[in-house]
Amino acid sequence: MENGTERWRVRVNERLKAKSAITVRGTLMKLIGNLNKDDPRPTVPLGHGDPSPFPCFRTTPVAEDAIVDAVRSAKFNSYTPTFGILPARRAIADYLSCDLPYVLSPDDVYLTIGCIQAIEVILKVLACPGANILLPRPGFPYYEACAASLQLEVRHFDLNPEKGWEVDLESVDALADENTTAIVIINPGNPCGTVYTHQHLKKIAETARKLGILVIADEVYHHLTFGTNPFVPMGAFGSIVPVITLGSISKRWLVPGWRLGWLVTCDPNGILQKLGVIESIMGCLEVTSGPPTFIQGAIPHILEKSGEDFFSKTIDTLRVTAYTCCDRIKEISCITCPNKPEGSMFVMVKLNISLLEDINDDVEFCLKLAKEESVIILPGAALGMKNWLRITFAVDPSALEDGFERIKTFCQRHAKKQ
Amino acid sequence: MENGTERWRVRVNERLKAKSAITVRGTLMKLIGNLNKDDPRPTVPLGHGDPSPFPCFRTTPVAEDAIVDAVRSAKFNSYTPTFGILPARRAIADYLSCDLPYVLSPDDVYLTIGCIQAIEVILKVLACPGANILLPRPGFPYYEACAASLQLEVRHFDLNPEKGWEVDLESVDALADENTTAIVIINPGNPCGTVYTHQHLKKIAETARKLGILVIADEVYHHLTFGTNPFVPMGAFGSIVPVITLGSISKRWLVPGWRLGWLVTCDPNGILQKLGVIESIMGCLEVTSGPPTFIQGAIPHILEKSGEDFFSKTIDTLRVTAYTCCDRIKEISCITCPNKPEGSMFVMVKLNISLLEDINDDVEFCLKLAKEESVIILPGAALGMKNWLRITFAVDPSALEDGFERIKTFCQRHAKKQ
Ligand SMILES: Cc1ncc(COP(=O)(O)O)c(C=O)c1O
Ligand SMILES: Cc1ncc(COP(=O)(O)O)c(C=O)c1O
Repeated sequence: MENGTERWRVRVNERLKAKSAITVRGTLMKLIGNLNKDDPRPTVPLGHGDPSPFPCFRTTPVAEDAIVDAVRSAKFNSYTPTFGILPARRAIADYLSCDLPYVLSPDDVYLTIGCIQAIEVILKVLACPGANILLPRPGFPYYEACAASLQLEVRHFDLNPEKGWEVDLESVDALADENTTAIVIINPGNPCGTVYTHQHLKKIAETARKLGILVIADEVYHHLTFGTNPFVPMGAFGSIVPVITLGSISKRWLVPGWRLGWLVTCDPNGILQKLGVIESIMGCLEVTSGPPTFIQGAIPHILEKSGEDFFSKTIDTLRVTAYTCCDRIKEISCITCPNKPEGSMFVMVKLNISLLEDINDDVEFCLKLAKEESVIILPGAALGMKNWLRITFAVDPSALEDGFERIKTFCQRHAKKQ
Repeated sequence: MENGTERWRVRVNERLKAKSAITVRGTLMKLIGNLNKDDPRPTVPLGHGDPSPFPCFRTTPVAEDAIVDAVRSAKFNSYTPTFGILPARRAIADYLSCDLPYVLSPDDVYLTIGCIQAIEVILKVLACPGANILLPRPGFPYYEACAASLQLEVRHFDLNPEKGWEVDLESVDALADENTTAIVIINPGNPCGTVYTHQHLKKIAETARKLGILVIADEVYHHLTFGTNPFVPMGAFGSIVPVITLGSISKRWLVPGWRLGWLVTCDPNGILQKLGVIESIMGCLEVTSGPPTFIQGAIPHILEKSGEDFFSKTIDTLRVTAYTCCDRIKEISCITCPNKPEGSMFVMVKLNISLLEDINDDVEFCLKLAKEESVIILPGAALGMKNWLRITFAVDPSALEDGFERIKTFCQRHAKKQ
C-alpha cells in the first residue's frame, strides 16, 4: 500500500471529474478564492442568486410557521411516495392553475429537491443516445453541466440583446434536427432579467410545435416581475405544445436553502403520457429521494397563506435595487446595460474592454475586482458571453450602493489614459 | 396531434422505465394494491423499514427543537456548498469518530439526502464501463435498481443462514475479477437483523484488501443493536482497506422523512484521494442538490444533545418486538427463523411451501395475506431469496401481536390437510 495505488483495482467514472469550471458555483468559488483577505471592508456579493442573507429579503413568518407546525405535529417523519405527498401535489397544482387557462391535477405535479432536481430529472428522461437539447445563450450553466454528465448533446440558440433578449427563433429553427427533443426557456430570465410577453411565448410554443419538440419552461423566478410585462407561464400554451414547467419556492419565498421544487406537466392533450415521458419521470424518481416530508407537509400552508403584502414587499425592493443598478451603471463608462431588467434578480451588462488599460477580458475584470475591491460579479464567460458581466441586484440597497461605488473606483483606476 | 404521437420527435431514456418491479417500494405498492378495501380491520404493515408512524417510535423532542430553532433563526435559508456546511460536517465527523481508532476530519464527510443519495453517489463514482460491484444476497434492492440505472454490473455473494448470515468469503473470492471495484456490507443487517462481530468484519476487510477492492459500509442502522454483539463500524478497519461509510439519521433518530444522510471516507492512509475517488465524489455532488440548509444547521444540536435515554428506549422497544416476533414465528409451522435478529428492524424467515395447500411461492403468500388478512410482508423474491419472507418488527407491540394472530389464522386456513 505504501508503494502507491497499484494494488487497488478501483477505477472512477471520469465523466464526474472537474465540473466546477462550468458551474456558476465553481466560478464564484474561484473569485472568492481571489479575495484579498487584508481588505477590512465587507465583501459585496453581486454574483449569486440568493438574497436570503439580507434582512430585507427575509422570508415570511407564514412559511417559517408552516415548517414549525409540520415538525411539531410529528405527522411528517415518514418516507413518502417518490413523487411527493398528495396534499403538497394538490396545493402546487392549485397554485399554478390560478395562472392557467385549464386546471392542473395533482397527478401532473412531481415534487423535487429544488428546481435543480427537476432539471436533472427532465434531462435524464430526455438523454437518449444521439439526442440533443436546445439551450439559451446566455443561460443558466447548470443545464450544460448536467447535460455533460448525461452525455446529452447541447446546442445553443441566442437571446438577442438588440431585441430585449428575446429568443432568436430563426436560429432555433436552424439548430434543430431530427434528434432534437426539447428547448429550454427561462422566464423570468436568468441572467438577463427579461420577462417575455404573451406574444413572444406563444411564438416559441408554435416554433416548438412545428419542430415537434417539447418546451421545458424554467420558471423558478415566477412572479418576480416589477416592470410592465406581467409574468405569463409557458404552460398557458400547453395545448399548442407539451410544456414541462420547472419551479420552486426558492426565489419567490426567498428560501433557496429549503430545497423544495417541482416538475409539472402542462399538457392538456396528454401527449407526454403517449410519448412515455410520464413513465420515464416516474422511473427516474423511483431511484432517488424526494424533499423532506415535513417540508412537503408545510407546502399547502406556505402556498395558500402567504400574504400579498409579503410578495409586494419583495417586488418593491427588487424594483428599487434594479433601478439603482441601472442608474449606477450609467455612471461607469466601460459598462453599458442594453436592457433594463424587468424581473428575476439579474442584469447583463456589456463590458467595453477597449476602454480599460490593463484588463484583457471579463474574467480578468472580475478576478481583479474581487482582489482589489472585494466585489464579486459573475463574468459572462461563465454563461457563454465573453466580455459581458452578470450583476445581481437582489441585495440590500446599501450593499448595492457600496458595491457600485467600488466598481466605479475600480474602473476609473483601470481606465485607459486619453 | 389528434393522430397520435408521430409529429413529436421526442424519445425517452428507456433505461429509466419500470424499475418498480425491483425496488422494495415497488413491491410494497403492489401488495398494498392487493388489499381488500372492505376489510374493516386496520392494515398491519410488517413490510417497511419505517417505524415513525407509531407513537412508541416518535423521535426525541431534542431533534424537533433543533429543527425549529434552525428555522426560526433565519440563518439557514441560503444555498450551501455542495458537500454541506462545515458545522454539520464537523458534528458528523466527531459523532462517528467516537467509535473509531482514529479521528475523522470534517473533510471526510459529505452530506447527502438520506443514505439513499449516498448510495447513488458512490455507485455513480464507481460506474465505469465494464466495472462490477459485489452485493449481498439477501440485501437492499435499491443497490440493484441504482446499479441498473447506471449500467454498473452487479455480482451477488451469499449471506449464509447456517452461519448467522455471515458473508460467505469464499464465494466473494470466487466472484471478484480485475473489474471488481467494491463490496457492499450492510451492518447491522437489512434484511437479516444480523450484527457482525469485530472478527468477521476484520476478515471482510482483509479479503477486500487482498482483492484490491473498496468496502462500502452501509451503516444506516448503526447502533440499532439489542443482542450480544455490539455495533462495530467497518471504518475501524480503514487502515486495512479504504472504507466508504454510508449512514443517516433516518433509523437511529426515527426520522426517515427528514432525509439527512452522509457519505464518509474512512481512509487514514489517503488511498481514496490517490485513486481519484474524492475528486469524483466532489464532481458528482457538484451537479446535484444537498439536504435543506436548516436541517444541516440542526445537525450539530441533534447529534450532540440527543440523550442516551431516547436511544435506549428505542432499543428496549425493538428488543421486545424482535423477541415477540421470534416467539410468534415458532407458533406457526410453515415459517421458521434460522437466526434470532440482534439488530436493525428486520428478520428473515423461511417459508416451507410444502406445508401449504393452495399457495405456490412467497409472492403468492404475500399477495393472499394482504388480500385476506390485511397484513403486509415483503416476499423474499424482492431480495433474491425465493420462499423466504422479510418481516419488520419495528412496529407498535400491539400491532405486531395483531399481525401475527392474523398470519397464524391465514397459515392454518391454507395448511395442507394431513
Ligand atoms: C434559472 C434557474 N433555474 C434553476 C435554479 C435552481 O433553483 P432551486 O433553488 O429551486 O434549485 C436557479 C437558481 O439560481 C436558476 O437561476
Ligand atoms: C440498508 C439500507 N440502506 C439505505 C437505506 C436508505 O436510508 P435513508 O432513509 O437514510 O435514505 C435503507 C432504508 O431502508 C436501508 O434499509
